[in-house]
Amino acid sequence: MEARYPSESLTTLTDLVLPGETNPLNNLFGGELLARMDRAAGIAAGRHSRRIVVTASVNHVAFNQAIPLGSVVTVEAKVSRAFTSSMEVIIDVWVEDRQSGDRTKVNEAIYTFVAVNETGSPVPVPPIQPQTDLEKQRYEAALRRKQLSLVLAGKMKPDDATELKALFI
Amino acid sequence: MEARYPSESLTTLTDLVLPGETNPLNNLFGGELLARMDRAAGIAAGRHSRRIVVTASVNHVAFNQAIPLGSVVTVEAKVSRAFTSSMEVIIDVWVEDRQSGDRTKVNEAIYTFVAVNETGSPVPVPPIQPQTDLEKQRYEAALRRKQLSLVLAGKMKPDDATELKALFI
Amino acid sequence: MEARYPSESLTTLTDLVLPGETNPLNNLFGGELLARMDRAAGIAAGRHSRRIVVTASVNHVAFNQAIPLGSVVTVEAKVSRAFTSSMEVIIDVWVEDRQSGDRTKVNEAIYTFVAVNETGSPVPVPPIQPQTDLEKQRYEAALRRKQLSLVLAGKMKPDDATELKALFI
Amino acid sequence: MEARYPSESLTTLTDLVLPGETNPLNNLFGGELLARMDRAAGIAAGRHSRRIVVTASVNHVAFNQAIPLGSVVTVEAKVSRAFTSSMEVIIDVWVEDRQSGDRTKVNEAIYTFVAVNETGSPVPVPPIQPQTDLEKQRYEAALRRKQLSLVLAGKMKPDDATELKALFI
Amino acid sequence: MEARYPSESLTTLTDLVLPGETNPLNNLFGGELLARMDRAAGIAAGRHSRRIVVTASVNHVAFNQAIPLGSVVTVEAKVSRAFTSSMEVIIDVWVEDRQSGDRTKVNEAIYTFVAVNETGSPVPVPPIQPQTDLEKQRYEAALRRKQLSLVLAGKMKPDDATELKALFI
Amino acid sequence: MEARYPSESLTTLTDLVLPGETNPLNNLFGGELLARMDRAAGIAAGRHSRRIVVTASVNHVAFNQAIPLGSVVTVEAKVSRAFTSSMEVIIDVWVEDRQSGDRTKVNEAIYTFVAVNETGSPVPVPPIQPQTDLEKQRYEAALRRKQLSLVLAGKMKPDDATELKALFI
Repeated sequence: MEARYPSESLTTLTDLVLPGETNPLNNLFGGELLARMDRAAGIAAGRHSRRIVVTASVNHVAFNQAIPLGSVVTVEAKVSRAFTSSMEVIIDVWVEDRQSGDRTKVNEAIYTFVAVNETGSPVPVPPIQPQTDLEKQRYEAALRRKQLSLVLAGKMKPDDATELKALFI
Repeated sequence: MEARYPSESLTTLTDLVLPGETNPLNNLFGGELLARMDRAAGIAAGRHSRRIVVTASVNHVAFNQAIPLGSVVTVEAKVSRAFTSSMEVIIDVWVEDRQSGDRTKVNEAIYTFVAVNETGSPVPVPPIQPQTDLEKQRYEAALRRKQLSLVLAGKMKPDDATELKALFI
Repeated sequence: MEARYPSESLTTLTDLVLPGETNPLNNLFGGELLARMDRAAGIAAGRHSRRIVVTASVNHVAFNQAIPLGSVVTVEAKVSRAFTSSMEVIIDVWVEDRQSGDRTKVNEAIYTFVAVNETGSPVPVPPIQPQTDLEKQRYEAALRRKQLSLVLAGKMKPDDATELKALFI
Repeated sequence: MEARYPSESLTTLTDLVLPGETNPLNNLFGGELLARMDRAAGIAAGRHSRRIVVTASVNHVAFNQAIPLGSVVTVEAKVSRAFTSSMEVIIDVWVEDRQSGDRTKVNEAIYTFVAVNETGSPVPVPPIQPQTDLEKQRYEAALRRKQLSLVLAGKMKPDDATELKALFI
Repeated sequence: MEARYPSESLTTLTDLVLPGETNPLNNLFGGELLARMDRAAGIAAGRHSRRIVVTASVNHVAFNQAIPLGSVVTVEAKVSRAFTSSMEVIIDVWVEDRQSGDRTKVNEAIYTFVAVNETGSPVPVPPIQPQTDLEKQRYEAALRRKQLSLVLAGKMKPDDATELKALFI
Repeated sequence: MEARYPSESLTTLTDLVLPGETNPLNNLFGGELLARMDRAAGIAAGRHSRRIVVTASVNHVAFNQAIPLGSVVTVEAKVSRAFTSSMEVIIDVWVEDRQSGDRTKVNEAIYTFVAVNETGSPVPVPPIQPQTDLEKQRYEAALRRKQLSLVLAGKMKPDDATELKALFI
């Protein structure tokens, strides 16, 4: 399969924060943001693989900024690296200030998807060719993250996670 | 503040998988499960702290088993450890087979919540006193996870994460 | 079929009251509570019978206490008695006070479900064996309620509803 | 207050059965029908009283006919009798056959609402003047139902429920 | 096929404005009203044709009056004219004042639907026989609107739209 | 106020077609597409004006292609012309083929929004400066559309709609 560029999978989901999605402080529930990011990231993974995709995992996500009711939220998802049949997708989340028009980045998350056939079995996906500096940097980091994920899942010994281990020694 | 037991925060959310929550293979979207777990975990954190709580983070979550449309899904959330104003909540997810009645564990996730006052500022929460063996084990592990979270967020040097470092050396 | 215990069908659905479910006084619509209770009770009946179940009836339900927006509501459903192919399910509804942690019972309802096969025809269900005092009391009362239901539906003459008649003479 | 006619409160809610509201047999959940009837009946009670209204109770409801996905369902609600500050509303439910155009009555339910002010305290409502034969018959029966409701709630002794008692002796 | 009367397709959808459907001024989103009108009009077209129907177009709709959260909104749809396999449906929208009981017309819209078979191909529909003065007037106007629609879609030359042209010369 | 470019208001909403939004042929309801377009267009108008905006009107919309359940739909909205306090927004709708990755344009719609202050009164908006050929062409056409809208609303005599009249003579 021919390699694709990350930009080919770019998926943008701009939408409002509606009342049914907010907590008692009138801010977006963390879980609702996780669900929106999953939908956008799944579309990005589908664009890269041209296959049905299912969520395999979501990396650690921190919620550092509240997103108030009525905000315009932009979720941007792009495949950062493709493995045999899985894809890592990085999602950036932005909120805009209505009066100044300024966009503030409020979150960043990393989901992994697997491409499957109609019966749910994994199928191979095309490789990816990063182009911009940010895309290259995220492409490199994806390998360390995959190692961490395998270690945490007990599928790789910490000793074998060469790139990851380097961070701690 | 007096310590509370993990069992005091136990929150159970048993519900069906409805059509609007399923992907093209007719299985529950990963993101929808993340949202359900966030709601249950937030209620558990609210029960422990008796405060408004907001999601601070969700740890790495893997989705290893598909949950088909119409399934009965049980989400059980319980506070595993309390820090100054934050709480770690562990969520176990079960699916039942209608004919045999067997329950299968399909997921486990870890969310962190912060207790806040009406203006959104953090407030202290009661300590927790684990009772069962599983609760004690999760209580111990919570410290390592907090260290990993701080390291990943760049708020703690890997060298200072004593417990975490021990895993790799 | 071997008898089962009421506790085997216990279904707990703890969730928040969200904005889309509230009336102009910002309290949960009665109808939304009826729908939540139906879902929980249907799961309980499914757990007892291990069959597809459909709602056959709901008994008189009174709404004596308002449930405000943002409340944590716990719906607990348990099969109280099994007949040939129908099951009576009793649902208790609790609301918690965030600050004191006190749980207040705000409602109690009784639904009847019928177990069916894939074409919708009724199928037999296992008998039930009440254990606690409350379960035994509800098991006895279920017979009177079935008689009342049959009388109201015109399927039993008031004279034949022996247990029910005793209440009025 | 001047009396109003039942026809002045007639409320019609015709809508489709959508996928998110159906059970594993692809029929409308009983609980969803209860919620729709509550919304229509609440609007009818609001039209009679011109006040905010809250659901006080729902009488025994039987579900005798399945309502398949995609059906056109018509819910018609009309106040049948007004008491001091409460109103009984009768709801008729119809389903249409697309090809023949025939309407079949699939359910009938009775809800009671209370008119309240902005703080939730009961306020008086206008009396009602039934006109058609069916309206008169339902108006008469409403009194017996109110007695049954009071008896079941323990607020009236069976002996005092004159009209109701007559049914059993 | 025998002609039907517009009154046979009359569809009434009375429902509340709920929080999830309102903009930052707490008024119903224009788009949500368009969706409600589409559902009601589709049911009306289905009643006239006794077929599956799909939305073919919506005419220019102006939103001149805000509809606040909690309002009782009545959407009334009625087929105004039938062509070979398409039907024009006119929708009137009313809002009620709770205290006075007055109904105010807040919108009027015109949708066109096409009757189709199970594979989505157009099928013929019965002609319509207007009865009231308003029905007759709307029936006549429907022809001019069809011409405008064809002109705007580039399927009819302005010169051939005899009725429409007369409006401008 | 300084002029802005159409590109500054570009709003992209890419999302899946979910089961609750589809008709009996499993295609997206026309009304649901109208609601999605309204949300995206409202965000675009808000980005141009940096004000609260409300839907003033939607132009004639034709639905020529079915959008099946599970499709990835991209709604792109951009302000095409600004008047005193209103803005015309053009929305293009695309659907992708999963296997080939081809994007097909399935719809185009034109909404008008008004910028308002907190009490709902119109406020002035910045002018717009079209850049690309398509933007310039849409900018010119916007004037003719405004005239048609005013004529249809009875607020302009057909004789005065110079640009529009030219189309018919």
